[in-house]
Parts: sequence; structure tokens; C-alpha cells
Amino acid sequence: MRIAVDAMGGDYAPDAIVHGGIEAVRAGKGEYEVVLVGDEDQIQHCLSRHFRIHELPISIHHASQKIEMPESPTAALKQKPDASIAVAMGLHKRGEVDAVISAGHTGAAMAAAFLSLERIKGVKRPAISSLIPYGHGLGVTLLIDVGANLECKPINLLQFGVMGSIYMKNMYHLANPRVGLLNIGEEDTKGTDLIQEAYRLLSKSRLNFCGNVEGRDVMDGKVDVIVCEGFVGNVLLKFAESFNGVYSKTLKRKIGKKVFSSVGAFLLKPTFERLRRIYDYEEYGGVPLLGINGTCIICHGGSTPKAIKNAVKEAVTMIQQRVNEKISNEVVGMMEEERDAK
Amino acid sequence: MRIAVDAMGGDYAPDAIVHGGIEAVRAGKGEYEVVLVGDEDQIQHCLSRHFRIHELPISIHHASQKIEMPESPTAALKQKPDASIAVAMGLHKRGEVDAVISAGHTGAAMAAAFLSLERIKGVKRPAISSLIPYGHGLGVTLLIDVGANLECKPINLLQFGVMGSIYMKNMYHLANPRVGLLNIGEEDTKGTDLIQEAYRLLSKSRLNFCGNVEGRDVMDGKVDVIVCEGFVGNVLLKFAESFNGVYSKTLKRKIGKKVFSSVGAFLLKPTFERLRRIYDYEEYGGVPLLGINGTCIICHGGSTPKAIKNAVKEAVTMIQQRVNEKISNEVVGMMEEERDAK
Repeated sequence: MRIAVDAMGGDYAPDAIVHGGIEAVRAGKGEYEVVLVGDEDQIQHCLSRHFRIHELPISIHHASQKIEMPESPTAALKQKPDASIAVAMGLHKRGEVDAVISAGHTGAAMAAAFLSLERIKGVKRPAISSLIPYGHGLGVTLLIDVGANLECKPINLLQFGVMGSIYMKNMYHLANPRVGLLNIGEEDTKGTDLIQEAYRLLSKSRLNFCGNVEGRDVMDGKVDVIVCEGFVGNVLLKFAESFNGVYSKTLKRKIGKKVFSSVGAFLLKPTFERLRRIYDYEEYGGVPLLGINGTCIICHGGSTPKAIKNAVKEAVTMIQQRVNEKISNEVVGMMEEERDAK
Repeated sequence: MRIAVDAMGGDYAPDAIVHGGIEAVRAGKGEYEVVLVGDEDQIQHCLSRHFRIHELPISIHHASQKIEMPESPTAALKQKPDASIAVAMGLHKRGEVDAVISAGHTGAAMAAAFLSLERIKGVKRPAISSLIPYGHGLGVTLLIDVGANLECKPINLLQFGVMGSIYMKNMYHLANPRVGLLNIGEEDTKGTDLIQEAYRLLSKSRLNFCGNVEGRDVMDGKVDVIVCEGFVGNVLLKFAESFNGVYSKTLKRKIGKKVFSSVGAFLLKPTFERLRRIYDYEEYGGVPLLGINGTCIICHGGSTPKAIKNAVKEAVTMIQQRVNEKISNEVVGMMEEERDAK
């Protein structure tokens, strides 16, 4: 198995990314190979700072360009055909690698994936998801979609539920993942026409549909998959990501120069560190683009080597678990049943 | 000035509500009167537990029914014409009171207001807003709409910006409130067609429009008013409300039985209490229904007497500042300019 890693994408690229690639192959014990895609000289320089690299299944595939954060995804992909993310997706398209990992420009990675790779048979719209930690760090809930499809049709939301459910079942070993629909109230009469129709489709599907979930339920672990349109999912995700920072900043400010509080904060430091880790999205390797006929993991811009290593392992597991094949079977099966019912 | 308070609405009704009404008139020093609307016997019983009530400008208006939380707003209002919230709105409609305060069923209060009261001249859709504390408890940002209009037209979003701006200017003494549009990115090319068109309308308006704000900006005090459709606003608000609880529960669990951490937590108790207050939405009296030709303040279900007192004062200030008249002038003015431009 060969996993392409976009070495030029991410706040700490290429150093942290290359380092993560090395960690991944060390952990893989020969089970898979990592292909670092990007500027050969820079990657070589990063590699040279690590020991016994020549013994590892890691290689470089040169790409002369890279996409910067402020660029518009589609324009950038047009202007930079040799951008690392485009080259990596090209390798995937031609079957030279089995997956692509990127911590770079999320929009560009999505656009490159959508341009290079087909959709899974039966899937109408691919989606990008995110993992939200719940409760006491006991688990995660998959939020799908968080930005690939700002507006959706009911069938898209149903398919997001199917894809999310299969992902969580195979990647988190859940027997029958609970699926919820993001809405403004619990009753099935709540929400827009779109949401009410999606509720109806989800109810009569084979999914373990648990009804509507509200904003307040997102972090309580009530369900394993939350289905929503990309606009609201994106707003919610970015809001959630900001909260940890806001809370700790306010806490620090309130502690100020008070002696007792400062001592208290010192004694609680390990606890805060554990809390930070629970709510720190960098710890969760990456999130999959679901619905494309390939395996693409999008990582946080601030990804550490550990995050990249985890993302590579996630891609390997997704391939081993044949997640895409299972999604296709389920989606096609649903369409056939629908047709037969008519 | 007479302010009607729905004595039967809220988790701690009628006790906390009646108590809040008393606090309000004590603080008002005769400037306004409070009319408690609800079951006369129950309210009388609550009043009897307070001293020297007969000296205060507080009275009872009997209503034999009340709307319970699980009821559907419109059905409940039809079945219970003598429900306290409906009676209170009726008083407002007939000009017997100048404002209505309710901590009861939000949907029912909204529906009763929309049924009883006209819209402000020029306003196409009334909206419900909410206050989000930012940063270090230094201020609040108004989020509008949070559930009255799940789907909107661009003109509605523009008008929400106008109403929010005038509200914040007059109630929080801001010279020129900064208005932001909730979106998935900063650039004006981001978002759905609806959002892009709203961006264009807001840009060419007289508002102090600061562009798009993302989920991560909601709590950083970047703007004073955030405009959004009611669906995403409602999800975001409920998510925000839940976070304080989630965070403290996780913190408690992580502290567990560790001695150092427990001592630390004890020493930090006052700080946590201050934090709780910043993020505790019950502390913020209530939020206005903007765009109706009347003054209605919707309070949190768990409202304390203090919250009710603050809501009464908020209503009084809104009337004194002639917020509705200013909204009408601005909205009608904008429409006329638009017409002249054509």
C-alpha cells in the first residue's frame, strides 16, 4: 500500500509533515509505503536530519509548486498544475498511490480531489466531515458535512448519514452507529422543508436514526453521526474550535495576579493540559473526504508529526476496512430498493 | 409606563417571576408599573410572601390558562385563548400595557406576538436575537436571527442588520455598532447565493458593515451585531449555551480524586464562579423580539428574579430610547432611497 503525503501543506510544512511521514512508516513496520510529494530539495533536507532513512519505505515525488493559504482553490489549481496537492491527487487518480494525506489548504485539497477522482458509485455528493469530542473525552461524534456542500437536497443528507455511519462503524468499531439530524428542535415537525424531508428519508432508512439533535446535543455524545448542510456544519465546527482558546484566555485573565487563584491554576495545570488535549482538534489526525472513489484525509493546518502519523494510519485502516466499497454497496442497494418500491 | 410580565412562564414560575416583578418595581421607584398576568390565586399567594406589596405599583391581570413547554405554539394558542402569554399580548395590542416580558415557551411568545402585534412599518420579517458574551466578559455581541426565520431573503438579513445595529446603539451606547455577516469564510465570494447577495446589500448600506465573520469569530468581539438566518443562529446559540456545562463537567471529571487538582480547584473556585457568570446566559435579562410594533422581551426559561428585573428595565429603556421608531425611520428611509435610485 502506498500513501501520498502532501509535504508542502500545513503551518509547519515541510518539517512537521516529513517528520510525521517518517513516524508513520516506522510505526507501519513495512506494511505500507509513504510517498512525500513536494519540493525534492526541501524534503531531502528535512529527511537528512533523521537517522537511517534509507532503510525505511519512504520516497519523494517531486512537485515544483505549492498552494498558499489565501489563494482561491480553483484558480490556484488552474494556475499551478504542479502544486503538491494536485500532483498527489494525480498519483492517486492513476493508481500509483492508494491514498492522499494533506494538512494544507482544505479548499484546494477538496477541489483537487473532486477534480481528479470520481465519486463512489451511487453517491450524489461527496462530503467533508469532522470529529467532535464529546463529554469527558470518551468518544467522538462525526459531523458531516462541514463545508463541501453549503446547500443540500434531502437525498444528500440521507447519503451523508449512510457514509458517516459506515465510517464510524468501521473506524471506531461501533456495532450500529446512532445517526442524528441537526435541527432546531426535537420534534419531526421542526425545521425547514428540506430538513423535514430529510427526517422522513432517514426515518425509513436502515440507519439507526435517532431523530433530531439540537445545538446543545452536539457535544453530549447522544449520537455518533450528526448530519447537516455544509454551511451550518462549517459555522458550528469553527465555533467549536475557537471555544477552547476563548475559555482558557478568559480563565487566565480572570486569574490575573490573585495569589490563591494562581496557586490553584498551577495545581490544576495537568488537568488543564488533559482538557486541552480533549478539545484540541490537532490531536485527531485528520478527517476523511467521504464519497469520492479514493481515500483522502484532510488534516488540520497546525498538524504535528503525530497528527500526520495518525492520518496515515487512518487512511490505511480505511483501505483495509474497504469503507468505500461498503458505502457504494449500501447506497446502490438503497437506490435499488427505492426503485423496486416504485 | 406599564409592563406586563407573564407570571406563568418559566421553570421557576410563578414564584421567581413574581419575585422578579417586585424587584423591578422596587428598583423603578414609581417610574413604571408591572402587571403580573396569570392565575390570580397563585400570583396573590406569591405576592403575600413579600412585605409591603400594597405600596408598590404592581397589579394582577387574571388569565386562567398557561402554555406548557412541550406544546406546539400555534395549536396551544388556538386551544388556550386565555393563556397568560396570549392575554399579555392582548393587553399590549389594546395599548393597556407598553411591553410584555415572558420567560415561558419561546415559540408561543413569538407566535402570540406575531399574531397580536403588527410589524414595524417597513420591516418585512421580525426577528429574535440573542446576546453572546465575548472575550473576557467585556461586552456582548447580538446574534440575529436565532429562530424566528429559519430561511431568509437577502433583504431580511439586511433589515436584521439595521434592527440589530439600532438596538445595540441605543441599548449599549455604541456610537457605530460593527455589523458582520455569518459566513464560512472572509472573502465576499464565499457562501451561498443568498449570503453573497446579503453581503452586497450590507456593503452598500449605511451600516458599519465589517464583512463576513466565521464561526471562530463569534466569541471574539470582532463585531457588535452578527446577522444570520434563524436556522444556523439557533443551532449556534444552543451549542454555545451548552458549552459552559460541558466544559465544567469534563473539568470536574478530570480532577476526580487527585489531591493537588482538588486543592487547585478549590482555590480557583471564585474564578470559576466569575467565568460561569460570563458564560451563563441566565444572567442576561432577556432578548428582544425586533421588528414588531411593540416591545417584547423573551427571557431564558431558567430566569431568576434578577433576570426578570433586568428584562423589565430593558423594556423600559427600549421604550424610552424609542428603538422601534428609529428602526422604522431607518428601514423606510432605505426603501425610499432604493426607490429613488431606480
